[in-house]
Amino acid sequence: MASVTVFGPPLSTAVSRVLACLLEKDVEFELSPVDMSKGQHKAPEFLKLQPFGQVPAFRDGGITLFESRAICRYICDKYSDQGNASLIGTREGGLLERYSIEQWLEAESQSYNSPSSTLVLQLALAPRMGLKQDPALIEQSEAKLSKVLDVYEQRLAESRFLAGDEFTLADLSHLPNTQYLVNATDRGGLITSRENVGRWWEEISKRDSWMKVVEMQKAGAPQPS
Amino acid sequence: MASVTVFGPPLSTAVSRVLACLLEKDVEFELSPVDMSKGQHKAPEFLKLQPFGQVPAFRDGGITLFESRAICRYICDKYSDQGNASLIGTREGGLLERYSIEQWLEAESQSYNSPSSTLVLQLALAPRMGLKQDPALIEQSEAKLSKVLDVYEQRLAESRFLAGDEFTLADLSHLPNTQYLVNATDRGGLITSRENVGRWWEEISKRDSWMKVVEMQKAGAPQPS
Repeated sequence: MASVTVFGPPLSTAVSRVLACLLEKDVEFELSPVDMSKGQHKAPEFLKLQPFGQVPAFRDGGITLFESRAICRYICDKYSDQGNASLIGTREGGLLERYSIEQWLEAESQSYNSPSSTLVLQLALAPRMGLKQDPALIEQSEAKLSKVLDVYEQRLAESRFLAGDEFTLADLSHLPNTQYLVNATDRGGLITSRENVGRWWEEISKRDSWMKVVEMQKAGAPQPS
Repeated sequence: MASVTVFGPPLSTAVSRVLACLLEKDVEFELSPVDMSKGQHKAPEFLKLQPFGQVPAFRDGGITLFESRAICRYICDKYSDQGNASLIGTREGGLLERYSIEQWLEAESQSYNSPSSTLVLQLALAPRMGLKQDPALIEQSEAKLSKVLDVYEQRLAESRFLAGDEFTLADLSHLPNTQYLVNATDRGGLITSRENVGRWWEEISKRDSWMKVVEMQKAGAPQPS
């Protein structure tokens, strides 16, 4: 029996970030469904795991954690000896390698996440949920994301991946929002029209780990490896 | 001569986060002024250090980094043997301690930072800069922050600090926005009217490290310890 349990649906970007990390690290896990349409993420027993009422929650033996990027860092440290060894930097790479990853992971968290998730929400989800779109917010988010991607384009002209020569948590953390942006909105050109960002996206989105997550999302149901 | 240089003004919340961390860890540093009113953060030589054109940038010998929370993690790891030993968890505390800190640091980054900084921008800075306030955004941010603080109130009823019994990077990371929220807006009651959040704020804002940062902010000029 797997000691690791992830609570939440793979369709959630934060849940899929954690799933991709577990698959990269060859960590066995179980998925525990949380039906958000029934408000299960606000139920008292779930709030004990995740007091903000958000997904995912995460359990590994006696440790419970929330916040997808904190969970990913934990998985990399706890399971340092298995799976992808360079996801959060190799021991030989030292502090420079580790903190190159950390700074680009923070760039995703602070600069990329907000405008990209707003575009996905406004362009892909709002119409399906019968919510009104906010054209000013869409325009503002597209402009913000464009500026961020101009910096990425420059970085990726010099470097195969964001933190250096290897695929790391910094790249992985961009997968969930970018998947929806490219495939579920009409603004995928923000990514694919930029030479180096497009080349990077082509490479990272084809990783076995991420393709498995996308399959799980399509199935809409738990299908751990 | 200090090997560490921080580029940016102490009045910036992201710069002051890094300064507080350096002071907690007893790391000597130099401040290198960046006059944002003159656009120095968009100058080509600064963009080499910080490609997004934001402050702070950071240099330690041959390593340059950006993103305040990544820089703080780096400082804690690099200078693990000096200053506050529990800022990012003690070795004896193991993964549970470290990742309790990481999850609350991410809560600050993902849930607390956006509504608190929006309130500071709208209520304290917009009037001084002659910008129009957005009442709907203020109301929305206050409601968001209130919900986050309700979770903090519950957590701090059980625990002296966010991650456990010790002051850590998770608490420290809240200082910059909260300082302005309490002292430069009329919504400080969001913090001070909550019994446990108020008690926590009283304690963390009185730390020597933070009081030195506030002095540096008041002086408006570099004054490293």
